Amino acid sequence: MAGKDIVSTDTKGVIIMHFNDQATAFGGIKRARIKEKGICCNRISSIIFKTLADAGIPNHFLEVEGPRDMKCIKVSPLPFQIVIRNRLAGSTAIMLGVNEGTSIPNTIFEFRYRCSELGKPMINEHHVVALGLATYEELEMMKDMSKRVNDVVKDLFHKAGIELVDIKLRFGRTADGRIILADEISPDNCRLWDESDGRILDKDRFRHDMSDVTVTYKEVMDRLVKVAEV
Amino acid sequence: MAGKDIVSTDTKGVIIMHFNDQATAFGGIKRARIKEKGICCNRISSIIFKTLADAGIPNHFLEVEGPRDMKCIKVSPLPFQIVIRNRLAGSTAIMLGVNEGTSIPNTIFEFRYRCSELGKPMINEHHVVALGLATYEELEMMKDMSKRVNDVVKDLFHKAGIELVDIKLRFGRTADGRIILADEISPDNCRLWDESDGRILDKDRFRHDMSDVTVTYKEVMDRLVKVAEV
Repeated sequence: MAGKDIVSTDTKGVIIMHFNDQATAFGGIKRARIKEKGICCNRISSIIFKTLADAGIPNHFLEVEGPRDMKCIKVSPLPFQIVIRNRLAGSTAIMLGVNEGTSIPNTIFEFRYRCSELGKPMINEHHVVALGLATYEELEMMKDMSKRVNDVVKDLFHKAGIELVDIKLRFGRTADGRIILADEISPDNCRLWDESDGRILDKDRFRHDMSDVTVTYKEVMDRLVKVAEV
Repeated sequence: MAGKDIVSTDTKGVIIMHFNDQATAFGGIKRARIKEKGICCNRISSIIFKTLADAGIPNHFLEVEGPRDMKCIKVSPLPFQIVIRNRLAGSTAIMLGVNEGTSIPNTIFEFRYRCSELGKPMINEHHVVALGLATYEELEMMKDMSKRVNDVVKDLFHKAGIELVDIKLRFGRTADGRIILADEISPDNCRLWDESDGRILDKDRFRHDMSDVTVTYKEVMDRLVKVAEV
């Protein structure tokens, strides 16, 4: 997995997630190394996962192990992700033929099948069940959890003057069969816009060859550290 | 609209849907004239819409006006369709990387945005609401209606020894704001397989250059006429 390495530990059911500086975009076509990105994503993710746990949302985070390392509960990742959109941007804005950043009266939830040979297509919950990836009951639970994650993360970023435009969530199954939030939550899988001037503060800077990717990731980290009550 | 012409009448709120013999596939790239297709689709649709009305499902059908003509309530078509799948076939089977005709333990419901410039993308109910095309309440009603339509039409075809693999439904708004089932239901917008030998009895024969398209549409009509209690 670009951006992170999973390292096993001596403790059963516990892994270290190591954040490296690799960046990929457009399904792996664009690749680069972004200096110190791993440090920022580890710190940002840690703050967010702690905040989520405090809000009662179960996730894989256990503790920070080092500047690039996070101790986590080991999970088998589910092969789909849930994307939550508070505005229309990116591929969905293109798909619907609307401008980047179009406001919406509701919150959009999308499922994406994480199968790179198939181009990570957008699917729905019926496809997930048909493929045997999860049950309707599990999906209801994940949708409910996703809604709460969006509320908590949106609120946290808002305190830092940052708008959460969209966020991709991944879930995993623990050894005892529970489904919990996993992976990372950082500028690598959120769209983050400065609330005052609309400046892009996320991976889109890398996708679209904008300057100061490292500086921006650090800025997000610093602004989040200031407001986080953790 | 290829395949059908909408003709106004002297009665307010009433139109004639005239079924011609034009066929299109692959978003209009493939075009042909299939002799007497219009007659078959009019007859098949009439039988199905009558059966649905008897089952309490509101739709635009009023009466048969002639071999190619159906008198209908005038509606403003909603710019999306609901596809119901009892097996995986066609574009969805390709999207999910499974074999044509794969059995599934559930019923799949999909929304497709009918915007030809955008390639009729698969969307979900949150996109429908975000675009202002319908409310969540209206979508719940349409999903419930779609489920019942699938049950009734599947049962009707089953009596004729035909399996309903999938079906595309379109809805429209009447002058007084009600949402009802509209368009046609025929081998042009259903996948129909012979239950005994798996023979394809629908528009896929035209899509994939198989023989006897007219003969097959007539066969579906004749088998349906025999079992229909209308």
